[in-house]
Amino acid sequence: MTGYRQIETEKARNFCQALFQAYGFKEDESETITDILLRADLYGIESHGVQRLVRYNEEITSGQVDIGAKTEIVHETAISACIEANKVMGQLAASQAMKLAIEKAKKSGCGMITVRNSNHYGIAGYYAEMASAEDLIGVCMTNTEAICVPTFGCEAMTGTNAIALSMPADPVPFSYDASTTVVPRGKLEVYRKNGQPLPDLWAMDKEGNPCTDAAEVIDNIIAKAGGGIAPLGGVGVLHGGHKGYGLSVIVDLFSAVISGGLTSNHVNRKPAHTGICHYFMALDYGIFGDKRSIKENMSNFLQEIRDSKKAKGHSRIYTHVEMEAELMAQRKKTQIPVNEKTLEEMIKIAKNLKLPESSLL
Amino acid sequence: MTGYRQIETEKARNFCQALFQAYGFKEDESETITDILLRADLYGIESHGVQRLVRYNEEITSGQVDIGAKTEIVHETAISACIEANKVMGQLAASQAMKLAIEKAKKSGCGMITVRNSNHYGIAGYYAEMASAEDLIGVCMTNTEAICVPTFGCEAMTGTNAIALSMPADPVPFSYDASTTVVPRGKLEVYRKNGQPLPDLWAMDKEGNPCTDAAEVIDNIIAKAGGGIAPLGGVGVLHGGHKGYGLSVIVDLFSAVISGGLTSNHVNRKPAHTGICHYFMALDYGIFGDKRSIKENMSNFLQEIRDSKKAKGHSRIYTHVEMEAELMAQRKKTQIPVNEKTLEEMIKIAKNLKLPESSLL
Repeated sequence: MTGYRQIETEKARNFCQALFQAYGFKEDESETITDILLRADLYGIESHGVQRLVRYNEEITSGQVDIGAKTEIVHETAISACIEANKVMGQLAASQAMKLAIEKAKKSGCGMITVRNSNHYGIAGYYAEMASAEDLIGVCMTNTEAICVPTFGCEAMTGTNAIALSMPADPVPFSYDASTTVVPRGKLEVYRKNGQPLPDLWAMDKEGNPCTDAAEVIDNIIAKAGGGIAPLGGVGVLHGGHKGYGLSVIVDLFSAVISGGLTSNHVNRKPAHTGICHYFMALDYGIFGDKRSIKENMSNFLQEIRDSKKAKGHSRIYTHVEMEAELMAQRKKTQIPVNEKTLEEMIKIAKNLKLPESSLL
Repeated sequence: MTGYRQIETEKARNFCQALFQAYGFKEDESETITDILLRADLYGIESHGVQRLVRYNEEITSGQVDIGAKTEIVHETAISACIEANKVMGQLAASQAMKLAIEKAKKSGCGMITVRNSNHYGIAGYYAEMASAEDLIGVCMTNTEAICVPTFGCEAMTGTNAIALSMPADPVPFSYDASTTVVPRGKLEVYRKNGQPLPDLWAMDKEGNPCTDAAEVIDNIIAKAGGGIAPLGGVGVLHGGHKGYGLSVIVDLFSAVISGGLTSNHVNRKPAHTGICHYFMALDYGIFGDKRSIKENMSNFLQEIRDSKKAKGHSRIYTHVEMEAELMAQRKKTQIPVNEKTLEEMIKIAKNLKLPESSLL
């Protein structure tokens, strides 16, 4: 296993900012992308943080991401819009869409935006939290390249297909952000690295049998040879795998079906085009009653959960995003850990882009 | 194990209709309740079908359900409402709420209704399908008495907390309806009846340890002694139990928190008052683009899933509600199976209500 180096958070921010500007993104665009990337590292979600720069570099240089493109609103009402993203960077399409959703929610109570032909956008939770920071409920979904095998199938048809929802509360919002697969692909990579067998509910081989060999599953996914990861609930129906499968279809419905974009099983099938689709909602919960008491109800309910009896061996029950928010408070002022191998690649990319020595990490 | 008797579907319908009128419900109210109950039996969801009459009888005679009460809209906008159900029968509050949601969706693109102080309302999918039958997306959620233990906890804090979503498609809509627990309580009853040990991801004992003894878990639930059922994803975090836990909180947010009603952990804590809360949404997907092509996109995507490669030993991949719709088509014209013990109790209830001999089953 490779080691980690602690990088000052502000230094990492400046590095990413300079990097994206070097690709040709505008200053404010680079700020947006950087903020979303770093949020993942601050939250401890390494898979979606700066380590993703390597993949973004490929996507930008291969033309999957079109730096000069502009998004277009192709359909719009007071409470909705459909955006054609024209292959812009996912973070830019997504933050623009959520801003529009928020604007509509403030005017009309609710804003729902569906986005097609976008790209990977980082953590879904970031956008949901844009809404909750404005005292609204935020919802965000995205499809991805197919990796999830439907119940009784052996071919991946839906993506990691995350759902995020954020609701204001004190002292910390409720902020849910999770894939509809039993685990994301990154978890399989960790098991492979450590030479551990997978739990037998997680993945299927080419024929749809439960498979505990992480390398075999990952290789099949990359080769699109069949098999993949099980939906939340696991392989088969015993533990509710059909529920996770249904939730993943719902994510494709809101992101891709409604926007007229590509469903997960068609994402990343053509050169220089991912076709990833998203969905955003901002909802002013004041359309149901007094906002102050509704928010108080939420804060009280979450506190009751935190205060409820703990299982043997556990001293704390977390509500969603509590753990991440605490980690962020600490890391913001100090450093984020970056994998040494990732760091090497980041510096290589920066040198290729002729970033000045002073901005290197 | 008790046996089953096949009852002519129309005869069961007439029986329920007469029964509810005998309690004092109006003719149209009785029709509504009956239709929702029977839909469960037609779909093969026995737990929510006529076998529920025994429990409804208790709820009506104990005063948990108030037959004479009227619901009130306590807050309303063009796209939303909050309904105080005043303890009416759950099916009546729910069908009224979804009708209002549909009306708002047709006028304003979207209708979202939250309902407090209601009662058990049968299968969530019924209401979602009211919307999809009108060429809208339907969403429905409900909380219940707490039965689901949060990750790292040992006290039930959320309910079965089902989520239903229905989207029009040909030849059959996509209609998802599932609890956010790994299994509903009825599944535990089946394991107890058969003397089988539970899979070890399903439930926790009083101290929050995984527990495979169905009788112990059920007894603890009834006595509110601690423990309960795991969220979707199972006990702990390995298989994503924290995801199911989060989804169950989301259901309480939309049903109870926003309506100012009781969250699951407070449901059924007072005599003659369940306090169950629901949420309904109807969404005109035409606010995002051309309805015909969106519906076609959905039909195509579902067909691609059904046509994808099958796992070894399986000949078919189902999309959600396909299996139930096929069973309904058959049972509608013939009979539904009713547990003999349930049948005895139903007849006892009917005799108490002085139903004429001719309407008995």
